[in-house]
Amino acid sequence: MNQFGHNFRLSIWGESHGPQIGIVLDGIPAGIALSEEDFEADLSRRRSGAHGTTARRERDIPHLVSGLYRGRTTGAPLAMEFTNEDVRSEDYRSTADHCRPSHADHTAAVRFGGFNDPRGGGHFSARLTVALTAAGVVAKRLLPPTIRFHTAVTRIGGCNDPLRFEELLDKAEREGDSLGGVITCRVEGIPAGWGEPLFDSVESLLSHLLFAIPAVKGVEFGSGFSGADRTGSQNNDPIIDAEGHTSTNFAGGINGGLTNGNALEFRVAVKPTPSIARPQETFNFGTGRIEPLTIRGRHDRCVALRAGAVVEAAAAIVLADLRRPIPQTLTK
Amino acid sequence: MNQFGHNFRLSIWGESHGPQIGIVLDGIPAGIALSEEDFEADLSRRRSGAHGTTARRERDIPHLVSGLYRGRTTGAPLAMEFTNEDVRSEDYRSTADHCRPSHADHTAAVRFGGFNDPRGGGHFSARLTVALTAAGVVAKRLLPPTIRFHTAVTRIGGCNDPLRFEELLDKAEREGDSLGGVITCRVEGIPAGWGEPLFDSVESLLSHLLFAIPAVKGVEFGSGFSGADRTGSQNNDPIIDAEGHTSTNFAGGINGGLTNGNALEFRVAVKPTPSIARPQETFNFGTGRIEPLTIRGRHDRCVALRAGAVVEAAAAIVLADLRRPIPQTLTK
Amino acid sequence: MNQFGHNFRLSIWGESHGPQIGIVLDGIPAGIALSEEDFEADLSRRRSGAHGTTARRERDIPHLVSGLYRGRTTGAPLAMEFTNEDVRSEDYRSTADHCRPSHADHTAAVRFGGFNDPRGGGHFSARLTVALTAAGVVAKRLLPPTIRFHTAVTRIGGCNDPLRFEELLDKAEREGDSLGGVITCRVEGIPAGWGEPLFDSVESLLSHLLFAIPAVKGVEFGSGFSGADRTGSQNNDPIIDAEGHTSTNFAGGINGGLTNGNALEFRVAVKPTPSIARPQETFNFGTGRIEPLTIRGRHDRCVALRAGAVVEAAAAIVLADLRRPIPQTLTK
Amino acid sequence: MNQFGHNFRLSIWGESHGPQIGIVLDGIPAGIALSEEDFEADLSRRRSGAHGTTARRERDIPHLVSGLYRGRTTGAPLAMEFTNEDVRSEDYRSTADHCRPSHADHTAAVRFGGFNDPRGGGHFSARLTVALTAAGVVAKRLLPPTIRFHTAVTRIGGCNDPLRFEELLDKAEREGDSLGGVITCRVEGIPAGWGEPLFDSVESLLSHLLFAIPAVKGVEFGSGFSGADRTGSQNNDPIIDAEGHTSTNFAGGINGGLTNGNALEFRVAVKPTPSIARPQETFNFGTGRIEPLTIRGRHDRCVALRAGAVVEAAAAIVLADLRRPIPQTLTK
Repeated sequence: MNQFGHNFRLSIWGESHGPQIGIVLDGIPAGIALSEEDFEADLSRRRSGAHGTTARRERDIPHLVSGLYRGRTTGAPLAMEFTNEDVRSEDYRSTADHCRPSHADHTAAVRFGGFNDPRGGGHFSARLTVALTAAGVVAKRLLPPTIRFHTAVTRIGGCNDPLRFEELLDKAEREGDSLGGVITCRVEGIPAGWGEPLFDSVESLLSHLLFAIPAVKGVEFGSGFSGADRTGSQNNDPIIDAEGHTSTNFAGGINGGLTNGNALEFRVAVKPTPSIARPQETFNFGTGRIEPLTIRGRHDRCVALRAGAVVEAAAAIVLADLRRPIPQTLTK
Repeated sequence: MNQFGHNFRLSIWGESHGPQIGIVLDGIPAGIALSEEDFEADLSRRRSGAHGTTARRERDIPHLVSGLYRGRTTGAPLAMEFTNEDVRSEDYRSTADHCRPSHADHTAAVRFGGFNDPRGGGHFSARLTVALTAAGVVAKRLLPPTIRFHTAVTRIGGCNDPLRFEELLDKAEREGDSLGGVITCRVEGIPAGWGEPLFDSVESLLSHLLFAIPAVKGVEFGSGFSGADRTGSQNNDPIIDAEGHTSTNFAGGINGGLTNGNALEFRVAVKPTPSIARPQETFNFGTGRIEPLTIRGRHDRCVALRAGAVVEAAAAIVLADLRRPIPQTLTK
Repeated sequence: MNQFGHNFRLSIWGESHGPQIGIVLDGIPAGIALSEEDFEADLSRRRSGAHGTTARRERDIPHLVSGLYRGRTTGAPLAMEFTNEDVRSEDYRSTADHCRPSHADHTAAVRFGGFNDPRGGGHFSARLTVALTAAGVVAKRLLPPTIRFHTAVTRIGGCNDPLRFEELLDKAEREGDSLGGVITCRVEGIPAGWGEPLFDSVESLLSHLLFAIPAVKGVEFGSGFSGADRTGSQNNDPIIDAEGHTSTNFAGGINGGLTNGNALEFRVAVKPTPSIARPQETFNFGTGRIEPLTIRGRHDRCVALRAGAVVEAAAAIVLADLRRPIPQTLTK
Repeated sequence: MNQFGHNFRLSIWGESHGPQIGIVLDGIPAGIALSEEDFEADLSRRRSGAHGTTARRERDIPHLVSGLYRGRTTGAPLAMEFTNEDVRSEDYRSTADHCRPSHADHTAAVRFGGFNDPRGGGHFSARLTVALTAAGVVAKRLLPPTIRFHTAVTRIGGCNDPLRFEELLDKAEREGDSLGGVITCRVEGIPAGWGEPLFDSVESLLSHLLFAIPAVKGVEFGSGFSGADRTGSQNNDPIIDAEGHTSTNFAGGINGGLTNGNALEFRVAVKPTPSIARPQETFNFGTGRIEPLTIRGRHDRCVALRAGAVVEAAAAIVLADLRRPIPQTLTK
């Protein structure tokens, strides 16, 4: 089901080469000023154009078609639509039979009995993240202004030095290949006590939404996988003041599934774009033989470059869903 | 909210030192034979007793109090209860004020205004995973018998050699410390096409439930974080036959959020138990000073040792929720 | 929250005088042939134009903007939009302060702090039922072809004789008044055993959706309120064959919340349109005084006349949500 | 699915002749004082014993097994259990084959393939309403103390005169028959603006839960079905002051699905108990013939007498789910 959230709820639709991508947001309080300009900053971070991104150019203008009156939210569902403008479906003629490796072509065909829209990945396309990013913009408006997001691609192709990323992208371009990367997100200013025990822990909800972003294959909070190599005395975060601040932050700002008043910190592994220029030997369901496949279409050399804005939007959406209206008084 | 699942739904309750842990399962088809004996194998894998596990001993007998008639499920909700028998609440007298580092003591108090049950972590305790494990037993009964689970602790304290785990646990014991670990789970025999695009991808639902397990701080599928270091040509899985089998499995059995007919593979990072025997310097909310804290109570030296059964249960629960009753015919 | 349904899920948006009304449907199987023409029959039943209906004329063309490929559903969410074309917002200038009696003007302003869209009732308008009606068209396609709907206005202004309805409407028109009515719906061909015990009984889900239709103030199944005046021996439905058919149908086709194989029968009370031409004395929040209010705008004399198609759509939607894919074998 | 509610959520289990009836409540704020004594008043109103009620005697002691610590709610799920003590299953030996007319015996068998628990109606039994009633007690504690419930059986066997009810019950008893009735509920003190537009209107959520109560076959708000016989000028409620009070209350306290600050008023039609002492001619699935059936077991002569407490609980539960924490400021 294409819905997410409890108090701030998303319902999404659209295909890569259909007329539009759309999303409806429910649970937005009335009276919040909102205009199309508010979306530009985050949408431009996700938009293609920079080195290593696809040649497909979309203007990504958010059409706000409901839930607004005189420039303010009304409390009714807010629907947004993004027209698909730069579509070249002829590039995808072959994908229905000769499925692209590590893409959803085959699984979508199995899941939907061959009736799925194969053009550009259809409903499985990363194109839908334009709507997620826009939802993140609205979500941020629901959060206290103390909350600040810091998101960056901190690793590409195994390299942690951003000064060398350009060089690696050039190399991948030359070799008709693609690169994976890691996105690091830190969110400061979240009050302590957000989240729910067990099933609706901050980690649970956030990973749920992060893994909905195409190409995400790993999520870790705080020390994450490296924390599993440590001892308790090395990995514990001693509390140092009455606000619950800790001297270290190996927990990534979450204890027992609840925010602890320190920065929320997590990392996201983004796989290399599966669409690569060099030919691949893979099974052709039409001929029944393994044959070389050359992928046409316009693709990102490193999808992690554009996914940062989406990852940050996911964090904002989950925090908006978990936000608590009334400060809790601690009466021990 | 303490509920999970769409078609196979869990609702959980209980506290570490309350009278019982319970869970009610909804969406179980009628007519499935089930008895208390069916739970023993998986519950014993989670139970304490082995080296490195807590001294608390619970018999973990599942009382099936509804939804069964003459030994078969009726289609009505199936409720199960586990009595808490070996409780020593006096050990937790101090935790309300002098919060244990990297535990939920402080965040729970903030979240619930100081009214949370602090004994043994209350509702935040890993004791609740006994109910998750039992739910996994039922979930497995809803799956086709072709599906096989293989779960193991593959790394402890940074070491990948199971023959050396004992030695590391001894060392941690001597030093009053604890160890983290990594659990690897592989599930074979899942038909292709299970899962939903985007929000209800297999990765989304599975990570949602995995991060609900206390101490889990990282989840990766297939090549995961190491895949982010690879190129597309290195990380892609070429399809080799009409069933969609691939020559490699860097995708961990999932493309576009849907199972692809290969083994589902994922890894879970479990942090070292935050309760350690050696004193820790941490803030005392009662005195307003940083003071040494010595944690009493009985705790696991390496909670990953017992979490494998829970991780496997989580996989079974998500698969039971996503299972598709009718094989899809591929009509391209 | 503007969502309904479990397996067949609706998410709706739009305002009476905004740019569009929209709905996204989730859970539609792939491969169902669907075109805009399929919607005309039911939408025309709801459309204004006949005696007693509003002068507002909308063409109600369903724009299917996602979830379709080559004329068939893809299994992805199906979004539909209806452009609002015949809008005269100037008629609603006064409603924000001088609230129309028995309308949502005042409650909406309280609920949304005065930020609601007041034009034509905004999000509370019966205009949104165009999307519900369209959802009903899709829902019917998911049901077995044996299922047949029979819906009619059986009572207007206290009169059960359809031949006299015209006369009553003329009188109400002359008097600047409006009329209420009762809609009767009978659905034949539903297999026995659809529905869930307790919270998701057929009556529960159906009434939930029926009461979401503006102006609906009563729902009864089978003998309903008159059945409460009967004795058990008068109201019981004896079973007469192995298919579970009954000699009477006082249960309205539902026992224990589940369909029993007989016709589903229910009645819906629709209040008279609160917008009437004659002046009404009511409080003006602007002046702080009770003052005569003359309502402008174009309104239905008897909204029940157009609500039949919506009531039937609600029944189809709930049945589509509850439909069971595999016939149950009775193995007593 | 046996769950209800969004912010205040119920999950129920149990069978008439199983070991217990249970319910878990989620979304309860921490810090509310609660003891088993608090439940006695409402549970006793539902309990049998009075004239016209079943001879089955249950003490209905609520065992609060989680979510409480030192007499106050902790914010964790609150589970309650009621032991079934006075069970006589031998009375139901025949019902599996010779289904009782207008009971769930046949539909349950179809729905669950014959694996349902037939003893006393199993999971379909009105016995489960003990848990609903208890949930209502908790729900009332979440509401502002201004809210007052007034619930009464206002009609039995077609008679509106409570002084004659006894006489009618005697007659039904003598004739081996049962009686239906109507319950009227009025709730005063609800702030204006509770509820949601469309799908989660107060009427939608309340009818959803009311129709989950066994034997309820009709629900109407305010003037309801009689309002459908009126004109707009007769049925409209003029507003008379700045608080939104109206001179009449034909709307039953709800406009546009939201509370309007006047009393919430609704009526519930309860069918006559289908279990009657006199023999009934009905199909025997075992013999394949229509045969006389004599129903054993202990039953209510008029289930409406005990359903009032359940109806009131349903209202409290829905209001607790819809309650709004912060008073809305109206800034027109």
